Amino acid sequence: MSVAPQILKAMENSSAIRKAFEAGIKLKKEFGNDNVYDFSLGNPDLEPPIEVKNVIKKIAASDEIGTHGYMPNAGYNFARAAMSKKVSEEQGVFVEEKNIIMSCGAAGGLNAVFKAILSQGDEIIVPSPFFAEYIHYCTNHGGKLIPAATNEDFSLNIDTIKNALSSKTAAVLINSPNNPTGKIYSKEDIQLLANTLEEHTKKTGRKPYIIADEPYRAIVYENKTVAPLFPVYDASIVVSSFAKNLSLPGERIGYIAVNPVFKEIDELCAAIIFANRILGYVNAPAFFQRVIAETWNAPVDFSSYLLRRNALTKVLDKANIHYAEPEGAFYLFCKVPKGKNGSTDENDFCNQLEKYRILAVPGTGFGKKGWFRLAYCVSEKTITNSTDAFIAAVKAW
Amino acid sequence: MSVAPQILKAMENSSAIRKAFEAGIKLKKEFGNDNVYDFSLGNPDLEPPIEVKNVIKKIAASDEIGTHGYMPNAGYNFARAAMSKKVSEEQGVFVEEKNIIMSCGAAGGLNAVFKAILSQGDEIIVPSPFFAEYIHYCTNHGGKLIPAATNEDFSLNIDTIKNALSSKTAAVLINSPNNPTGKIYSKEDIQLLANTLEEHTKKTGRKPYIIADEPYRAIVYENKTVAPLFPVYDASIVVSSFAKNLSLPGERIGYIAVNPVFKEIDELCAAIIFANRILGYVNAPAFFQRVIAETWNAPVDFSSYLLRRNALTKVLDKANIHYAEPEGAFYLFCKVPKGKNGSTDENDFCNQLEKYRILAVPGTGFGKKGWFRLAYCVSEKTITNSTDAFIAAVKAW
Repeated sequence: MSVAPQILKAMENSSAIRKAFEAGIKLKKEFGNDNVYDFSLGNPDLEPPIEVKNVIKKIAASDEIGTHGYMPNAGYNFARAAMSKKVSEEQGVFVEEKNIIMSCGAAGGLNAVFKAILSQGDEIIVPSPFFAEYIHYCTNHGGKLIPAATNEDFSLNIDTIKNALSSKTAAVLINSPNNPTGKIYSKEDIQLLANTLEEHTKKTGRKPYIIADEPYRAIVYENKTVAPLFPVYDASIVVSSFAKNLSLPGERIGYIAVNPVFKEIDELCAAIIFANRILGYVNAPAFFQRVIAETWNAPVDFSSYLLRRNALTKVLDKANIHYAEPEGAFYLFCKVPKGKNGSTDENDFCNQLEKYRILAVPGTGFGKKGWFRLAYCVSEKTITNSTDAFIAAVKAW
Repeated sequence: MSVAPQILKAMENSSAIRKAFEAGIKLKKEFGNDNVYDFSLGNPDLEPPIEVKNVIKKIAASDEIGTHGYMPNAGYNFARAAMSKKVSEEQGVFVEEKNIIMSCGAAGGLNAVFKAILSQGDEIIVPSPFFAEYIHYCTNHGGKLIPAATNEDFSLNIDTIKNALSSKTAAVLINSPNNPTGKIYSKEDIQLLANTLEEHTKKTGRKPYIIADEPYRAIVYENKTVAPLFPVYDASIVVSSFAKNLSLPGERIGYIAVNPVFKEIDELCAAIIFANRILGYVNAPAFFQRVIAETWNAPVDFSSYLLRRNALTKVLDKANIHYAEPEGAFYLFCKVPKGKNGSTDENDFCNQLEKYRILAVPGTGFGKKGWFRLAYCVSEKTITNSTDAFIAAVKAW
């Protein structure tokens, strides 16, 4: 046995997103980029803003000694100070730099947080549908992810969360704007969630964290906003990255922020810094800590994502595919149309789409059968050109 | 309880290296850089070679679309191809690029490998003294690190390894040139280790891996060389980084290479790529994958480390401190001199040194009482200036 059995098993049910992405690379080689409609991966097609590119050049030209060396495991103080400004603005409460930990992207940040807080058998509740990698991020550290179905419009369903709560609940993990639905959880619902957890704490003596995974916070449409979490619940943690808003997903740069009013904040931050170290991240990549310290608030025009959303919904309307209209992020979650044989199987339908060189991700990858996800961080041309393929695929389904 | 109990416990015995490094930052603020003799951390004081700096500038100036985007989890094909050349040269056997996985430094690489191969209760044997973070890298994934004492000159002791072997042994982890001793394990000893594991396999039916952690491979003195592993043992894996040889520790760029003759190589590589993804590294940082793909073989002059070694041994001779002469890397492992009260306690002695503004790491951090480590990747001036402090500290001990 060359590989641990539990890993072999996990690999069998592995990432449908990555499979589609890698299938797309092959198809593009065969048919050319323009003839493959790759909606598989949340890999932003916008380039990083010019401010980011300029600062990259500036840092590359710097002769400062030790630019690429070690720094404290929590990150450069100046990077943490910049994130403290960002988070304080977003959350409407002052967050000190000592309560910020720079991380290897949001995925690295979540793993460090889970490592710090989870004991064997602990549970993390997540509103479903959800980003499927969360399952692994929990099991990596002895935890179990417990999906709690959202309402039909994908808004938070407080009752399903209430039912999922137990003495094993270490945290509720929310992701808003949501991947895969594009839903933004309302301020009222976040407050209800906080109230529910306070009640649960009184009953059980164990206070679950609320952890907000927020890489899409900045990408919202039609003046929607993402409600702050820190003012409504003390045991709360925000994890984010610059993968999506600044189009730097390959650089693995993100951060963790802990609510300043949380009583055991010093212990928690120390544990997260420790987890960040021993999980082998050691520290967030040095170069991009420097980059985002100067460019975290670079203006970005997300209107093209809105145009892409509108272009894609038009295509889907023509193809008679039902979808949930996203309020943020760049994903469309779509219902599998009923096939000639009555099937609404998402895997079969995604295979059907692939025959027409459309790459989509089955909803099972997000805990939701009968649905599939399209990532529309691709050119409008790709979207428009896919019209005939979508129509033909549905017609032949 | 805000933090998992097992993490709190692990933090208590946490990194002496990092504690000394962070104490050093404070002392330097108080007394000035020139008045603190910081031998705590393996943070190379050489700057990256000019070739690296030039390529950083070139990539920063590139307008290639998607430079900072996602790529397959195993890394860019061109980066894997470059590593395939490097590893093939070093190991004397041809290693295909598909058997290379780019990683978030060697620490990220080791964690991905351990995650891929370890089941709960599995053991990894390490010749001792050893880099203490290995303990965490094992326990992170349900394993246990089993130290096997080396000989008095810190060479491999095959008998202690033989005694440590059991049906739970998943791997033997070797680190040569060694941190903290600077020892290079000889070709003959590597062959003996391979033979021993082959015998063990015949008896038990379970073949342990040999995993070589090789960040210091290039830093060797007086024409010493590090023996290749792939020609002598099939179930072998090399993990390395560019932290030490190219002075890029903060950038978290490394790789994993699997022996091409290993029968289950495809399964193993797939599992490591999967582990690299789900541990939240996702991929090695994009920018520095590009950098090292072009500069992995940039010429570096390590003669200054030899000068520093010789300068520091002169200082230690004057202070009457016994040490093991390193053959590679940039650490001196030293014996705590017997104090006036007969003590050879390494923690007390390191505290004593700190009073004289000398930062060193107690040997307990490497599984060896009565010793301490000095990292001499610091300026010769710092080394020479520390003479009086060392003499005074020992005199007053």
